[in-house]
Amino acid sequence: MNYYEEALKLHEKHQGKIHTELNCEINTMDDMSVVYTPGVAEPCRKIAENEEDVYRYTTKSNTIAVVSNGTAVLGLGNIGAKASIPVMEGKAALFKKFGNVNAVPICLDTQDKEELIQTVKNIAPCFGGINLEDIASPDCFEIEERLDQMLDIPVFHDDQHGTAVVVLAALYNALRVTKKDIKDITVVLNGPGAAGTAIIKMMYTAGVGKIIAVDEFGILYKERKEGLIPHKRALCDITNPNNMQGTLADALKGADVFVGVSKPNLVTDEMVHSMNEDPIIFAMANPEPEITYQKAKAAGARVVGTGRSDYPNQINNVLAFPGIFKGALEARVPSITPEMKVAVAKAIADTISDEDLNEENIMPKIFNKDVTIAVANAIKQFTK
Amino acid sequence: MNYYEEALKLHEKHQGKIHTELNCEINTMDDMSVVYTPGVAEPCRKIAENEEDVYRYTTKSNTIAVVSNGTAVLGLGNIGAKASIPVMEGKAALFKKFGNVNAVPICLDTQDKEELIQTVKNIAPCFGGINLEDIASPDCFEIEERLDQMLDIPVFHDDQHGTAVVVLAALYNALRVTKKDIKDITVVLNGPGAAGTAIIKMMYTAGVGKIIAVDEFGILYKERKEGLIPHKRALCDITNPNNMQGTLADALKGADVFVGVSKPNLVTDEMVHSMNEDPIIFAMANPEPEITYQKAKAAGARVVGTGRSDYPNQINNVLAFPGIFKGALEARVPSITPEMKVAVAKAIADTISDEDLNEENIMPKIFNKDVTIAVANAIKQFTK
Repeated sequence: MNYYEEALKLHEKHQGKIHTELNCEINTMDDMSVVYTPGVAEPCRKIAENEEDVYRYTTKSNTIAVVSNGTAVLGLGNIGAKASIPVMEGKAALFKKFGNVNAVPICLDTQDKEELIQTVKNIAPCFGGINLEDIASPDCFEIEERLDQMLDIPVFHDDQHGTAVVVLAALYNALRVTKKDIKDITVVLNGPGAAGTAIIKMMYTAGVGKIIAVDEFGILYKERKEGLIPHKRALCDITNPNNMQGTLADALKGADVFVGVSKPNLVTDEMVHSMNEDPIIFAMANPEPEITYQKAKAAGARVVGTGRSDYPNQINNVLAFPGIFKGALEARVPSITPEMKVAVAKAIADTISDEDLNEENIMPKIFNKDVTIAVANAIKQFTK
Repeated sequence: MNYYEEALKLHEKHQGKIHTELNCEINTMDDMSVVYTPGVAEPCRKIAENEEDVYRYTTKSNTIAVVSNGTAVLGLGNIGAKASIPVMEGKAALFKKFGNVNAVPICLDTQDKEELIQTVKNIAPCFGGINLEDIASPDCFEIEERLDQMLDIPVFHDDQHGTAVVVLAALYNALRVTKKDIKDITVVLNGPGAAGTAIIKMMYTAGVGKIIAVDEFGILYKERKEGLIPHKRALCDITNPNNMQGTLADALKGADVFVGVSKPNLVTDEMVHSMNEDPIIFAMANPEPEITYQKAKAAGARVVGTGRSDYPNQINNVLAFPGIFKGALEARVPSITPEMKVAVAKAIADTISDEDLNEENIMPKIFNKDVTIAVANAIKQFTK
């Protein structure tokens, strides 16, 4: 199947991928008087008296916004608001399909950080959560953090945390397969952008023994002169405790895990050979991974995961985001905390039983309905 | 039926009145690859190359935003963003029901004019039109005007123009009943706020002979000292050519038409008696009109219309807004011009045939599906 051709056909046929529907009939003047004036005044009055009633009487209870400024869309880069709409609609469709969460695409005609923050704050009342999407690093970090603090609803940048959650889930199960302890392992992460930074932070929270971050200038270390922009400088506090310097190849020597959220074909056979025994490779660059599944296996990797569905162990954040927002909306949590994300990763990993677990089956299938429920429950356990 | 009680029950049962639905199935990995990555990149690329393709491949083609800041909600006043959500959801439901237009409620957490304008401009990319709703006068005038100029999609404040269109439609048919010529009549409008101002402008555009505007200080005239705020001062240029001064009672002497968008029970029997023969009374204050249907008829009014569904001649803007946006989206007009609005009013009036027309039947029923089609066609005739 030529996905590009098929996608054009489908998008043109339906003129988009989602639409609105009524929750109730409007067939009589009485219906009109209940759905609209004069009856509608009553839920308005209730909410005006008690703001919390907004969750009782409106779609805020189960509706989120999928917000982007179009600055980092898929592999396409900064294509702007309008060209990003198909992705945000697609995301909204996935939220509905996998989480039964109503999601509204909001593509913003601004690339100014302050304006974006103010705009999202202003549109928040109708929404029970904000999923930020395809917003370029490093702005995405401050945007998410400030909005999450500012608003009483969860704000979640899926490119960061959705990816981080599923990578951690994959790691948990790869460690079950290889019988290694998370406290003893060394993880090398290549590509500390939006996703990479979140992965590092999550692994740190989850107790990974040692993390080495690598970018286009090599290993991140405190005194490095090149390209140590603020969020990368901050990563030096939780990575590379021995202040190692060098290249990706240097970092991988003796390492247990490679995580790539970077570029195709950066990892060679030799690098895999140089790793500790039972190497774990999560090569997430899309659509072409840092090393192909076959090549990594042939080079001796024990567990290999990629973003692709045509090989075993697809690491896909659709396993996480629908359930995360479903749980957050149902439990009405104000933020998705690091502890919640770790619990979600564990819940995803645990949907694979010991019997089913093997090196070619560390991740649940995306159409497995138990996953969303397990993820939502993992979030909901954090409510008082 | 107790509409308030029933409304609370309905709103709580459904937790709101609208939801999102998929336009297509997502049941296989192939579906995923067409709806989302990698296939979705192709419509993105097409739109990045040619911005107009956004109408071809996305829901912008048939989706609008229903935007409010909650400053003038129904009869409830400034109840803020959250408490206004049930009304905006109701409006969105009516757009779907009557126009098959997808509408998304956007309730804004700001009452600052500039911030509101910037926010709406920023969220515009996903939407094919903006319906402004329940935004207080006089800010509503500038907000609508500036946004409509700024954006390449229509921006329409329904409280102003939806109401104006249906009142003009009612006037057209009342004139058919009374066999008066629009050029010869005098219309007295009480309550030149958002709706009243738009009604005056529309009637002027439609060629009404003479218009007199009256507010709480009496007739509007150029030299008046009290309360002649800018939009009312501007109305003096198109109303009251003889610079009449006095009260509502003075204005009504010899007038042909009373239009009220003001307060209950302001119009007395004597005032109706004092009008020209075959008085036309459109008493639109809601839920209690300026004079009741029965009282106006008993006082000698020939044609009486109100906003209520329990009397003949309901003047309800649901006859206008769904078809207006349906037509605007289908024809992709960048603005709803005064000429379009007059054409829409004429189209609504003309859905009543000469045979069916009588003083108790000047307005089509709101569930008459021909109306939306006629309204949409009236808009579409303006495309080149």
